[in-house]
Amino acid sequence: MATASPRRRRNARAAKHAERAAPLQENERPVRPGFEGGRFAPFTDAQLDHLNRATLDVLADIGLANAIPSCIDRVVAAGGELTDAGRLRFPKALVEDTLAHCMRNVVLHARDPQHDLNLSGSRVHFGTAGAAVHMVDIENDHYRDTTLLDLYDLARLVDTLDNVHFFQRPVVARDMIDNRDLDINSLYACLAGTTKHIGVSFTDPDYAREALEMLHKVAGSEAKWRERPFVSQSNCFVVPPLRFAEDACKCLEVSIEGGMPVLLLSAGQAGATSPASLAGSVVQATAECLAGLVYVNLVKRGAPAVFGTWPFVSDLRTGAMTGGSGEQAILAAGVAQMGRYYGLSCGTAAGMSDAKLPDAQAGYEKGAAISLAAHAGANMVYETCGMYGSLLGCSFEGMVIDNDMLGAINRTVRGIEVSDETIGIETIREVTSGAQHYLGSDQTMSLMQSHYIYPEIGDRTSPKEWGELGKPKLLDVARKKLHATLSSHYPQHLSPELDAQIRAEHTIHLDTALMTVSDRWTTEN
Amino acid sequence: MATASPRRRRNARAAKHAERAAPLQENERPVRPGFEGGRFAPFTDAQLDHLNRATLDVLADIGLANAIPSCIDRVVAAGGELTDAGRLRFPKALVEDTLAHCMRNVVLHARDPQHDLNLSGSRVHFGTAGAAVHMVDIENDHYRDTTLLDLYDLARLVDTLDNVHFFQRPVVARDMIDNRDLDINSLYACLAGTTKHIGVSFTDPDYAREALEMLHKVAGSEAKWRERPFVSQSNCFVVPPLRFAEDACKCLEVSIEGGMPVLLLSAGQAGATSPASLAGSVVQATAECLAGLVYVNLVKRGAPAVFGTWPFVSDLRTGAMTGGSGEQAILAAGVAQMGRYYGLSCGTAAGMSDAKLPDAQAGYEKGAAISLAAHAGANMVYETCGMYGSLLGCSFEGMVIDNDMLGAINRTVRGIEVSDETIGIETIREVTSGAQHYLGSDQTMSLMQSHYIYPEIGDRTSPKEWGELGKPKLLDVARKKLHATLSSHYPQHLSPELDAQIRAEHTIHLDTALMTVSDRWTTEN
Repeated sequence: MATASPRRRRNARAAKHAERAAPLQENERPVRPGFEGGRFAPFTDAQLDHLNRATLDVLADIGLANAIPSCIDRVVAAGGELTDAGRLRFPKALVEDTLAHCMRNVVLHARDPQHDLNLSGSRVHFGTAGAAVHMVDIENDHYRDTTLLDLYDLARLVDTLDNVHFFQRPVVARDMIDNRDLDINSLYACLAGTTKHIGVSFTDPDYAREALEMLHKVAGSEAKWRERPFVSQSNCFVVPPLRFAEDACKCLEVSIEGGMPVLLLSAGQAGATSPASLAGSVVQATAECLAGLVYVNLVKRGAPAVFGTWPFVSDLRTGAMTGGSGEQAILAAGVAQMGRYYGLSCGTAAGMSDAKLPDAQAGYEKGAAISLAAHAGANMVYETCGMYGSLLGCSFEGMVIDNDMLGAINRTVRGIEVSDETIGIETIREVTSGAQHYLGSDQTMSLMQSHYIYPEIGDRTSPKEWGELGKPKLLDVARKKLHATLSSHYPQHLSPELDAQIRAEHTIHLDTALMTVSDRWTTEN
Repeated sequence: MATASPRRRRNARAAKHAERAAPLQENERPVRPGFEGGRFAPFTDAQLDHLNRATLDVLADIGLANAIPSCIDRVVAAGGELTDAGRLRFPKALVEDTLAHCMRNVVLHARDPQHDLNLSGSRVHFGTAGAAVHMVDIENDHYRDTTLLDLYDLARLVDTLDNVHFFQRPVVARDMIDNRDLDINSLYACLAGTTKHIGVSFTDPDYAREALEMLHKVAGSEAKWRERPFVSQSNCFVVPPLRFAEDACKCLEVSIEGGMPVLLLSAGQAGATSPASLAGSVVQATAECLAGLVYVNLVKRGAPAVFGTWPFVSDLRTGAMTGGSGEQAILAAGVAQMGRYYGLSCGTAAGMSDAKLPDAQAGYEKGAAISLAAHAGANMVYETCGMYGSLLGCSFEGMVIDNDMLGAINRTVRGIEVSDETIGIETIREVTSGAQHYLGSDQTMSLMQSHYIYPEIGDRTSPKEWGELGKPKLLDVARKKLHATLSSHYPQHLSPELDAQIRAEHTIHLDTALMTVSDRWTTEN
């Protein structure tokens, strides 16, 4: 380098500039799905062992109530025991046998393979989850009921948000009159809106079966669906503390048999349906999910399942859920580390603000909780965007804002690469003996796009520039971006032929007239 | 327990309730200053060794420019070398000798001993730092110039905020005409407002000497000051990359000789005054602070110093600082881990939002960055509250909001205690065989106040309650709390006699008429 002529340097720099103008290759982007987290360890190894022993004791000794006959039969045949009080006990050997042969390194496929999620190691992915019953109508300062159309709009919004890696149904389509319509139409709205991995839930095994038929059509055939299942079932198989949920268990069996991955979701609430002691909540949630994992593997050995310990937290003064508390943040990180301890593909929930609006409280609650869950190595961090009011409200604008947040947090998960090259002592030597600043150095130029991420709507202006721009408010900027997106991004993820086929065989309530450019969303805002 | 009569149980519960109504002992509070962080390790051990080797190479080989003669003399006498180009090189043996005998486990005292900061291990403390040149006037949507009165008001506000553990001067008193007035009056305003540990800075060694005289008076005598120095000097002894700052070095020597702890602050900006490569920025900042540490210890072996690696980050598109970026968040965590690697009392900056206002962006930038720096084990996390516009703006309302945030983050630093008692298998057994919920269990009651922290202004209402309350906005609630505090909390931290003494010997511009209840702040807002 020291012998390069000034002209040769200028040329090299011009080439770099040209390079920067070109779109980055996928593997050169500053942030990508699936960086390795796991550098945050809330527990010591000894504590993990202690929690594991207690978990196995709970399963072997206390067990779970309300198992359905098909579950009881399977577990008892495998060495479990049904007590006189009707509790199903899972002996240590059965749990350990499950851990020895269950599927690890689950891949959750997406219709577009570039969105496949590789849940191995401590690879971290961010996405949505449900299920809010209100949309936060920020313009009218109002919580209104959620609809099927909201779900479709959220799906196509997330379809465009780079830092949201999967789309689990974030809202309940409350305008659906019966549960069949709800289940089938929710799936349809997600499929129509995004080719990212989709998560849905089912209220009845028959609807799960019908959904599978729809998915076979979308995939092209049952075989193709089974090859790359791009929808998972979020399944609340357990009603904490330690009771199976009958209908959910039936839906679980349908999913497994139909080749649909399941999210084994235990959602106790510390101080209400799980222990107020956070360690106790970790143990109960872990025990519940391990019971679910045993069950899944007895239905089908090696069936894909995500270990979904989602322990929530109560405000102990009122008993109400507080999704944005510090207790919630550290609890999510703790269970993520338990998932890693077992080497399972795991997910938890973080980002469930208590604030009613996308305000500073919402921001800090999300920023802290999601960072800790991600760095603790959760493979799937659910509920990371758009959720307010402890999951009761969902905001379109919030999704847009949170996309920037997730990009920045993912940059922290990427971490700091250390090598002689990245340290670059020669660059330091060159600058300190010359320009005294790194602004134009080759290193700076080369890292500008590949190592630094820039927010899409987040404000980085100086106070002076901010004033000149009319002091834009974040929510207004988010709304503008939102309208620009939703007034134009009507993806054709279901071809007209496929759509007609689906509508011929399933009752679809999403009006096709609303699935194309109209004045529903305008760029005027 | 199984044999306790129902009546005895009721009595026990009534006793618990009575206990809960009583104020908590300091050591029973759900969060306290000084929890052990350090469970987030952005770097592996091998990476830390690599960074250390590179750092020592930079010091031995490149060294620092612009050392003042007293520094050169000391360093050369101790084995260093001044190159022909005027760079002062620090051989590895000199650095390692310093590390072998420098003060560790620094205690930063406070006038009120309950606010002493024990910077040992990975104990984490949160506080303010500077220095903004604007107040964010939220009511008028305006950035206005900061004044001495703002500094005083901020000091007495922080005096009341439980989760802000120290007060380093957050704003520049721009209404002071000369630097002497600035330095002396800034110190005075801090002392008048709070008995927490104070950090200030000096522009000239003479003003530092005058400040020490004032501090002797406040302490009662020079000996008492030296016994428990309750003010530290934040000292930018280095102008990155790798150049000493002449005036700051002179001030540093005065501080050390005067028994005032110093914050050795290196504030390069990646991509501008430090390498764009984050690993390079870690190395440069660490080298600079180690050079400062050698210097301090050559002035006085074992003098108290905080290892202040504060590497900032540029938006590489513009060269402007971006305090709220993901790159900034992980960089702060990385240098905190370097501080722990050396076993030094260390501090870094986190929470420097790019947003202009306390909005969702500000929230997530702060929540993520502060969480990571704290869990990485920074003993002092500076800039954690009230700062916007990449440190250009400071907000009173923001301080109130961020106090809640820091409480929640500190709860995550406290972590999850694991023991047979905290896991509480018997509680799980009892609930699953009985009530099926933990709401009224003894465990829940006993943890309600000692293990759960509740926000002071943060919103945890349900959407329904929120509507009934008139849909309060966070900023309005913060403003109300702010006015209630500042209209009433006029502490007498300087007795009238002491105040008169100070005013007799120093030119104090803070009008005593403004240091008492007036209509400057009202509870009407």
